[in-house]
Order: sequence, then structure tokens, then C-alpha cells
Amino acid sequence: MIQAENPFLSIATPWIAGLTPYVPGKPISELERELGIRDSVKLASNENPLGPGPKARAAIAALLGEIGRYPDGAGFELRRALADHHGVSPTAITLGNGSNDVLDLIARTFLQPGVESVFSEYAFAVYPISTQAVGATARVAPARDYGHDLDAMSALINDQTRVVWIANPNNPTGTWLAASALRSFIGSLPKTCVVVVDEAYTDYVSEPDFPDTTNWIETFPNLIVTRTFAKAYGLAALRVGYGISDPRVADLLNRVRQPFNVNALAQAAAAAAIGDREHVRASVELNRAGMRQLTDAFARLGIDYIPSVGNFVTIDLKRPAGPINDALLRRGVIVRPLANYGLPNHLRISTGLEQENARFIAALEDVLAA
Amino acid sequence: MIQAENPFLSIATPWIAGLTPYVPGKPISELERELGIRDSVKLASNENPLGPGPKARAAIAALLGEIGRYPDGAGFELRRALADHHGVSPTAITLGNGSNDVLDLIARTFLQPGVESVFSEYAFAVYPISTQAVGATARVAPARDYGHDLDAMSALINDQTRVVWIANPNNPTGTWLAASALRSFIGSLPKTCVVVVDEAYTDYVSEPDFPDTTNWIETFPNLIVTRTFAKAYGLAALRVGYGISDPRVADLLNRVRQPFNVNALAQAAAAAAIGDREHVRASVELNRAGMRQLTDAFARLGIDYIPSVGNFVTIDLKRPAGPINDALLRRGVIVRPLANYGLPNHLRISTGLEQENARFIAALEDVLAA
Repeated sequence: MIQAENPFLSIATPWIAGLTPYVPGKPISELERELGIRDSVKLASNENPLGPGPKARAAIAALLGEIGRYPDGAGFELRRALADHHGVSPTAITLGNGSNDVLDLIARTFLQPGVESVFSEYAFAVYPISTQAVGATARVAPARDYGHDLDAMSALINDQTRVVWIANPNNPTGTWLAASALRSFIGSLPKTCVVVVDEAYTDYVSEPDFPDTTNWIETFPNLIVTRTFAKAYGLAALRVGYGISDPRVADLLNRVRQPFNVNALAQAAAAAAIGDREHVRASVELNRAGMRQLTDAFARLGIDYIPSVGNFVTIDLKRPAGPINDALLRRGVIVRPLANYGLPNHLRISTGLEQENARFIAALEDVLAA
Repeated sequence: MIQAENPFLSIATPWIAGLTPYVPGKPISELERELGIRDSVKLASNENPLGPGPKARAAIAALLGEIGRYPDGAGFELRRALADHHGVSPTAITLGNGSNDVLDLIARTFLQPGVESVFSEYAFAVYPISTQAVGATARVAPARDYGHDLDAMSALINDQTRVVWIANPNNPTGTWLAASALRSFIGSLPKTCVVVVDEAYTDYVSEPDFPDTTNWIETFPNLIVTRTFAKAYGLAALRVGYGISDPRVADLLNRVRQPFNVNALAQAAAAAAIGDREHVRASVELNRAGMRQLTDAFARLGIDYIPSVGNFVTIDLKRPAGPINDALLRRGVIVRPLANYGLPNHLRISTGLEQENARFIAALEDVLAA
């Protein structure tokens, strides 16, 4: 199809044309109405099926009377809570409207036309979008076994590289990098680029040699670690993420940041949630049980999957996943097709509650038998 | 003072150096602790002292069980509610994390190094910041009687102008432009720029020849009108604003927009609030009474002020306002100094509840008598 020409492209920045026009999706309520279904199960967005914990809920409730007031633009209390939790200075923290916002701030600070960013095939979709949105060039390294191939990434780094994006664990494949390999890679990078380690799913990982890179920022001043409250902390609706870096890097990111980018309920809920270790523990435990439930079913059904340390698992159907996804939808089960990641035969399933996982397994069995 | 060199500036985009380093402010609780005061009155951020109305409150309460889920990235329900309210297509709407976010999307879509934006002296501080954050050049027209001088703005427009920013009413001065003058100005603009009419304070205005430019988008395809829920709708904590424009312009803005930029509680509260005309009416009425209370006091005390149609009023103390602001702070009254707007002798006071306004007036009288 020839793209219909938008006449305003002629006065927009040249790289806007390279961004995919926005295609609004439908909320679940609309989808259910159209498909004539009810009580659908959503295992599509790697959310925490337990939602927020009691401390976050209490913090939100306590603030409902203050909704007419602007958020604290400096995020004083939340940055203090995060600094205490990670053992860093509050000046090392950059708050974002979700970690997507932090990734976008990094792109806006270090990328522009003529310079490059490097990431892996099958990595998080925001890396190419944030790169394109500022007119920089994306260099994509081929994956190895669906995961980051650090040697292939190294081969793409040059004088024009300003940002290297690494997801650990990676979304949507669930693969991960061990501490020693990642540390060597970061140590080998030139001083002319920053390296982002996106740890959105870190709380789910129990592998002993999985790194906590927040301890590395003093060693590597060009390292930016990003985290989110949307996953194990169960605050996806509220939008809050953060970066941890050398304070001089955080100073630059905060120059571009909109002063009220993190809403007041998100700040309060996140500051309470970071101290609710019991809720994180319960969420991680639920995920472990759900992952076992799903992978046991895949083994029984003879379905290939990519071993995952996240709260999701990607299956390889060995044939186009679109029709199977459509059939699952008609049975009220919403999962994530990955064609836009270059994985047209794959579906990503988030772990849910036991009965949600069971409903997906039964629906998949039903669809594959048809 | 020579600015301390941040070594990471050498790998950042060149225009980051022109953005003011971020200086975190303190939340009121910290300020009160440091000053040894309690029960301070905040008339500094043009907030609605009534907060949200009952419909918005109910919508928030109904959604608290869903905080673990991502927002609807398309903003389906909110865009539909806004489209119905304004009599436009949902495709004309761009949602933002506050209207600040919409202004930033406009800058990111149409501005880049080598092109220009035009705005007025004393206009909203986000216009120069959004322009600088993408490396474009700001052209600032001198004000006339503290308000926008459209002739002076016209004189700055050339082939390189891509965005013209207009605040109507203007913040922080409270001045406004009549329909006929604004319409002529927009009609005179070249097709090579967009014009943003930022109507954050429009709900407070009762002047008969004040325009509702949302009716003009079919006539002027390069017009983008921005609105916010932070003022008369009382949702400042939640961050939600929007743009209304030709759908082809909205398509470009939505390409740059982060898909989950507006949090779920904000979407639900705003969709409910737009239909709560009674709450808007009560908020506007309270503002009218507060404005009378403040301006009567200024007249009695012989203090010059800029006549304002917003929910705030700016006074001219004819001497540096900083020490007076400090003295007000020590009396627990927080207002807004305007030195960063080039108005070092001025203070901006938001209208509050009757007793809040009275407390400010008494404190000011006390300070001026000292």
C-alpha cells in the first residue's frame, strides 16, 4: 500500500515520516462488545495479577483528597525512598512517567540526527521508536538464541554510537545476561556513549549470577539503569519508572524532563510500594507457580517455548500465530502476538492467576485441536 | 558564576547545555518543617481549591481495583467523551500527560535545529523550554501592556517559523485576546507553521468576545488548541491535558506520543469530569468571588495589579518582590514570584477559598506595614 500523504509532513521534522502512524487499539470493554464475549482473561501486558500491595493502596487512599494539587515536581519523597532502597544519592535518580519516559529522556538527551544507538534484534520496541523519534540511526545486532549477542552488539559500536540499549531480562523473549558477561561488555564500551540496562523484570529473576547493576554506577559513570513499578509492584495504571545513574548524567536527563511528569498518586504509591517486600515476594511466588503451570502445559502439548526468567513466556507455534491469536480472542483469552518484533509464529503469554492460566491453556488446547 | 562543566555535555546534544540545570524544589511538608510553620496556605499554582467534582471522584474510586493494569493506550473512552463535548471527531484529539506534554509533542513534531518558534514576552514558561529542548530557536515578541502584541509577533514570523505559541488567557499575566483579533492573526499566518492556542484557563473567562477556538479547527487546519483538566476541573495531581486539531496534525503528534502517557485514573476522572458542568460552574463562581476579594484588597492597599480573566492575579510591588515573598513564606503563605518571567517586582496569587484569600491579604498587609 502506498502511504497516503499527510500534507503536514512537509513542515514536520524529516524523521516523523519514519514513525508508524498511530493506530488506536480498542479497550477490552469494546473488544468484548464486538466479539460478543464476557469475562475475558488478559495475559497480554506482563501485568501483576495481584495488582498493588496494601501499602501502595493505603498511600493512594490517603492522597485522594489532594487531587486538585499539582504533584511535587522534584519527586522529593519518592527519590528519597528510592535512594534509601538502592543505597545511592537522590541526585542519582531520574523519575519517569513509566520507564518508557526515562528511555525517551535518554534518547532526547544523547541522540540526534547523525549519531547512532545500538540494540538487539527482538529487544523492547521502545528502543527503535525513541531512536527514530529524535532522528538518530538505529543499529540492530542479530540475536543469538533469541537473546542479546554482546559480541554482535560490540561489532556495531563506533565513534557515532551515543546510546547502547540492553534489556535484562529481555522483553519479549525472557532471555537474560549473566553478571560477568554484562560487566565485561560495559567495561569495554567507549566513553563516548551511555549504556542503558533496562531492568523492568529484574524482581522476578532468581538466577544466582543475575546482576543488580544499580551497584555498578560508581564503577561505570556512563551506565544508566532503568526500573519500573509496572511489573512486580503492580502499579501499571499509574505510570512510574526511574533511572539510576551518575548524578551528572541524571542532571542532563532532568533538564529535558517535564517537571510534573510523574503524577501525585504514582509518586505516593511507588514510595510506599518500594518498602512492601512482602507484596513483591508474593508476586514473585505467584509468577513462579504460573510459569511452572504454563511450561508444564507446553511440554505436555509439545509446544516449543523460549525459557524465560520474566513474568511472561513466548511460544513458537511453527506457523503463523495470527489465526491462533484470533481464535484465542474469540474464546476470551487475550495474549500478545509478536509479528511487530519479527516473530510472526510466536505468541507471548503473561503469567496470571492460576485460573487465568488454566483458561488460556484450555483455550489453546481447544484451538490447536480444531 | 562560571557554570561547572558536566563532562557528559560533550556527548549530549548541543542544545542540552542551553537548558537550565534542574534545581529540585521542596514539597510543602519539607518547607513547613524548615520554617517551623504549620497549616500553610498555597496560592502558588493556579489550582482549583475545590479539587475534583463528585463525578470525577466516583470515577477514580471505581477504578482503584484496576491499578495493576496498564492504561488504555489509545484513550478510547476519554477521546470519545472529549469529541462529544467539543463536537469534533475523536481523531482530532491528542491526549497528553498534562497539556505540558501536548506542548512538548508539538515541539518534537515541528521543531528542530535551524527552525524557529515565536511567542510573547511574559508567556507561559514551557514555550521556551520545549523549543530549547529540541534545539530550535525561540523568537520572543515584546509584550504590550503585559499581554500578547499580535503585530509584534507577526513581525517575527518568517519562512523558518514552524510553531507560534499563544496563551489565551495568558499565564502569568491573566491578559487575553478577543476573537476578532485572534482570528485575523491566525488567518494571516503562512501555511508553513502551526499555531498553538493554549486555553488552559478558558473555563474561567466570561468576556463575551472571548473565543472558543475549538470551533475553528475546520477553518484553520494549522491550528492546535490545547486544554487541561488541571485548572477548573480540579485534576492537577493526575496530569491530563489534550490538543484539538485537524486529524492529520493529530496523527503526527500521536506518532511521537508515548502510548501510555496518560495514566488510567486520569483518563477515567477526566472522562467523567468533562460532563460535570455543575462542578465547573461552582469552581468558576468561587474564582469570581475570590478575584473580587483580592482585587478589592489591592485597591484598598494601593497595590497595582494586572487585570486578569484567569484564576490568578499578578501584583506589581514596584520593588524587588523576593524579600516580600520570603516574608509571606515565613507567615505560611505561598505565592509565586515571577523573576524567571522577567518580572522581578511582581508576585502571582492564585485565588483560593475565602479564608485562604483572607489569610494572604492579612499577611501581605502585615508584611507591607513592617
